Amino acid sequence: MAAAPTAYEQLIDRHRPTLDQALETIRTRAYWSPHPEHPKAYGENGSLSAAEGKAAFDALLGTRFDLGQPGTDDWVGGEVSPYGIELGTTYPHADLDVLLPAMRAGQRAWRDAGAEARAAVCLEILARISARTHEFAHAVMHTSGQAFMMALQAGGPHAQDRGLEAVAYAYAEQTRTPDTAEWTKPQGKRPPLALTKQFTPVPRGIGLVIGCNTFPTWNGYPGLFASLATGNAVLVKPHPRAVLPLALTVRIAREVLAEAGFDPNLVALAAEAPGEGIAKTLALRPEIRIVDYTGSTAFGDWLETHARQAQVYTEKAGVNTVVVESTGAYKGMLANLAFSLSLYSGQMCTTPQNLLIPRDGIATDEGPKTYDEVVADLARAVDALLGDDARAAALLGALVNPDVRARLEAAPGLGEVALASREVTMPEFPDAVVRTPVIVKLDGAKPDDEAAYMSECFGPVSFAVAVDSAEDAVELLRRTVRDKGAMTVGAYTTSDDVAEAVREVCLEECAQLSLNLTGGVYVNQTAAFSDFHGSGGNPAANAALCDGAFVADRFRVVEVREEA
Amino acid sequence: MAAAPTAYEQLIDRHRPTLDQALETIRTRAYWSPHPEHPKAYGENGSLSAAEGKAAFDALLGTRFDLGQPGTDDWVGGEVSPYGIELGTTYPHADLDVLLPAMRAGQRAWRDAGAEARAAVCLEILARISARTHEFAHAVMHTSGQAFMMALQAGGPHAQDRGLEAVAYAYAEQTRTPDTAEWTKPQGKRPPLALTKQFTPVPRGIGLVIGCNTFPTWNGYPGLFASLATGNAVLVKPHPRAVLPLALTVRIAREVLAEAGFDPNLVALAAEAPGEGIAKTLALRPEIRIVDYTGSTAFGDWLETHARQAQVYTEKAGVNTVVVESTGAYKGMLANLAFSLSLYSGQMCTTPQNLLIPRDGIATDEGPKTYDEVVADLARAVDALLGDDARAAALLGALVNPDVRARLEAAPGLGEVALASREVTMPEFPDAVVRTPVIVKLDGAKPDDEAAYMSECFGPVSFAVAVDSAEDAVELLRRTVRDKGAMTVGAYTTSDDVAEAVREVCLEECAQLSLNLTGGVYVNQTAAFSDFHGSGGNPAANAALCDGAFVADRFRVVEVREEA
Repeated sequence: MAAAPTAYEQLIDRHRPTLDQALETIRTRAYWSPHPEHPKAYGENGSLSAAEGKAAFDALLGTRFDLGQPGTDDWVGGEVSPYGIELGTTYPHADLDVLLPAMRAGQRAWRDAGAEARAAVCLEILARISARTHEFAHAVMHTSGQAFMMALQAGGPHAQDRGLEAVAYAYAEQTRTPDTAEWTKPQGKRPPLALTKQFTPVPRGIGLVIGCNTFPTWNGYPGLFASLATGNAVLVKPHPRAVLPLALTVRIAREVLAEAGFDPNLVALAAEAPGEGIAKTLALRPEIRIVDYTGSTAFGDWLETHARQAQVYTEKAGVNTVVVESTGAYKGMLANLAFSLSLYSGQMCTTPQNLLIPRDGIATDEGPKTYDEVVADLARAVDALLGDDARAAALLGALVNPDVRARLEAAPGLGEVALASREVTMPEFPDAVVRTPVIVKLDGAKPDDEAAYMSECFGPVSFAVAVDSAEDAVELLRRTVRDKGAMTVGAYTTSDDVAEAVREVCLEECAQLSLNLTGGVYVNQTAAFSDFHGSGGNPAANAALCDGAFVADRFRVVEVREEA
Repeated sequence: MAAAPTAYEQLIDRHRPTLDQALETIRTRAYWSPHPEHPKAYGENGSLSAAEGKAAFDALLGTRFDLGQPGTDDWVGGEVSPYGIELGTTYPHADLDVLLPAMRAGQRAWRDAGAEARAAVCLEILARISARTHEFAHAVMHTSGQAFMMALQAGGPHAQDRGLEAVAYAYAEQTRTPDTAEWTKPQGKRPPLALTKQFTPVPRGIGLVIGCNTFPTWNGYPGLFASLATGNAVLVKPHPRAVLPLALTVRIAREVLAEAGFDPNLVALAAEAPGEGIAKTLALRPEIRIVDYTGSTAFGDWLETHARQAQVYTEKAGVNTVVVESTGAYKGMLANLAFSLSLYSGQMCTTPQNLLIPRDGIATDEGPKTYDEVVADLARAVDALLGDDARAAALLGALVNPDVRARLEAAPGLGEVALASREVTMPEFPDAVVRTPVIVKLDGAKPDDEAAYMSECFGPVSFAVAVDSAEDAVELLRRTVRDKGAMTVGAYTTSDDVAEAVREVCLEECAQLSLNLTGGVYVNQTAAFSDFHGSGGNPAANAALCDGAFVADRFRVVEVREEA
């Protein structure tokens, strides 16, 4: 251990200013990021250029991704890019009875290093991930189906921001209590009582991160870094269709840990054979004391019910809703909504699904618009946005899996089609399944239609739901959030009363609200350090990214007191 | 609402310095309390003197305790003091279908008032409780069986401290995010993206506090004030044998809320008829979103398993252990342990149960002592402490219920009695059941004995467990904490290696450790603002009093953003 303090003290020196800025920003919630969004920002100071990142990605294809993990009993893989490429990379398959004990071996030293050292190591991991953003961009693109630019930004800097945010929260939470305290209680004329107290944040055990297919890094990093920064080991179980981005992450984490003098087995990968379904097995292991999960409501509910030995943080399905009541910027509203519906083919957990529009129409700066006009104009706005195939593909990306495609193809059976989906061709990826979104008209008053709009239809399907009035829209919004949950709510209105009613529903039912977005910020995007992703207070998620509650129960504080 | 701001703004002015000092102290964890421990500190500045407190308590006996709650369908009661008095007070029995909706009516105004106003109202409630400390002392004494002085201190200032601590944590947690933020993201040569964001802490719903028999205020206040300060309404379900202290609390809370311009139904009492068992019904009501519980492991586990709609905070049973390996202050150790075993007849969740002593004896400043000598000397120390009946009664208090007495009487059947329990008479309370503690010798190596020492035997029963060695003691400590949980661990050792081994067990198994206490601080006492009560990381409790985790998930933050 002699060399370790030197190694991680250097990391503290290097990363303390970034940590301090992150801590400051989560208090002010102003804009900030240390991770550049522009692709051309990379290629210097040790980071991979676009060409280097592409080459690094290509070099991983068809290879065995060896992490040097104990208990590797086999090699598994089978990722097929939504763009049609077979990745051919294989990953270690773990004998859990060997790997899990090995992951605990280094926990004492990791715990004893303290919160600042752990934060610094986490920031070094993130810095090295950042330097390889172009490599990650390809890995995210070819597992999630995101278009390249989105994969680079959402899978790179935005994900890194969310990881850093979690580290900052974890550090702040652990340092709310001092390392030591002197406690002296007066006793009148007698000598005071005096104690010396030591406080140590101790980890829960091993955190399990269950990755998702669509945002392997963005949704994976908060839990990974929150658990690691609070002293836990972390086992990463990627979605079998999106292993590579998290395998790269695990490799970098293991390298940094080892260089800093810690046991690399504090972070490990649990890849699985096709159809193996190891998440259930892992989630119930007694060593697993924290679970972070993004995915279906069914499995999220199963985890919350059965993984009782663990703290379970879930992001599940929801029915995101936008109330369209009136607007002072009709064109901006249409453009903004069209973009929101199109981005990544609606495959974001934050994409609006139900647009609630009064059947008598809405007031706009271009005069009154009937329900039919609004829907038709929105369809035209989407068409205009996606008219050119190359531009469309760069926004839509590819459908992530056959289930999404099946839902898209079934959507016309649900109601009148206001905007039909069309195929988009990508000459460079002829096997990619790229589709424009469909908009279906439904009637909020028809019970048959309710079955459709009150279920999550994940993918490029949205419903223009005709409602009786603004009040009806607000009540349907309330019922939707309460019963089905929502990651996002949007509203367009020029009426203070309607805005206040929507706001009150969001406060009471606990949903994040974007009001009258008509420019370059979209309801489906949140910025780390400033916006909360989810609320943790409605059925769509039991936690928000990122707040004190997301980190506070990943560790406990043990006090040792003795007489001074 | 016009008058409300004035009312609570005055409260903010009055209590802000106390809140600031509490916030400062939870960071430094130095000694502090605004609530005096000495009985003579009361009687001026509007607080009840000893005589006034006694008179106020007497005036409550045999009366109907009307709280003016909606939906009161009956009056219930039946408290019998462990000192033999029938209280004869009756309390409102609630029609939940009336009371619970009424409790939600005032939540919007309470939420909109903000964290600082809520903290100020909570501090005013605590200040008024503090002023009536003498009245509460009698109420706690005659429900818990605590001796008067302990009832005054633990049931009064110490409980008030824990409530204030919870308010401070709740305030700090809610104000980590600003009320509003301006977010401006540069876009190169294009105009920046600019959003205005509002952040509002919103409550979960109604918090349910399930009180316990032994410490109705001390264990009840943290959950009550944590939930109330975070914007929730709070329904208090007292233990049917310890209603009065919490009924008084609820009455004061309702008065303060009303005076400050809020709905008094934000805090309500749910008393029950004998044998009614309403806790299960209440805990599963959809309106109940938070549960705070102190009591048996069986019901705590039931709550954690079944009250899935709520955040559940439990303090359950544990097997508190003291390792006695060696000491440099033999007499101090014996006196300290004797006091710990005797205080409130061992009816604290923090009282040591198992004393692990090497069978070959221990080294002390008075020379080596055999296992038998240590146990006999401890028995003599207890005898010396409790030799005088009046002094004994003032330390022991009364047995809280017949179950404790039954366990005490069964203890001699478990092994060789090193110290027999004796009856203590109290002339002023001839029906009080007052007993000195029993110490039973057990052998750590005998499976039959293990059944006894590996279960919680709540009450004045402790086991002197002979172990093979210090290593054996440490391993038994580890197994006990891991399998059974512990609110407290103690150790006596002059060996750095043994101290380190015990410390490591406590860090790994997550238990709070008191090392070599030989003076006037006891393992079973914790001080608010400085000591954590429980760790939340072993089976004895899933939460600690009080830390960020105890408050962070009682509310969520809702963000409303719009273009700037």
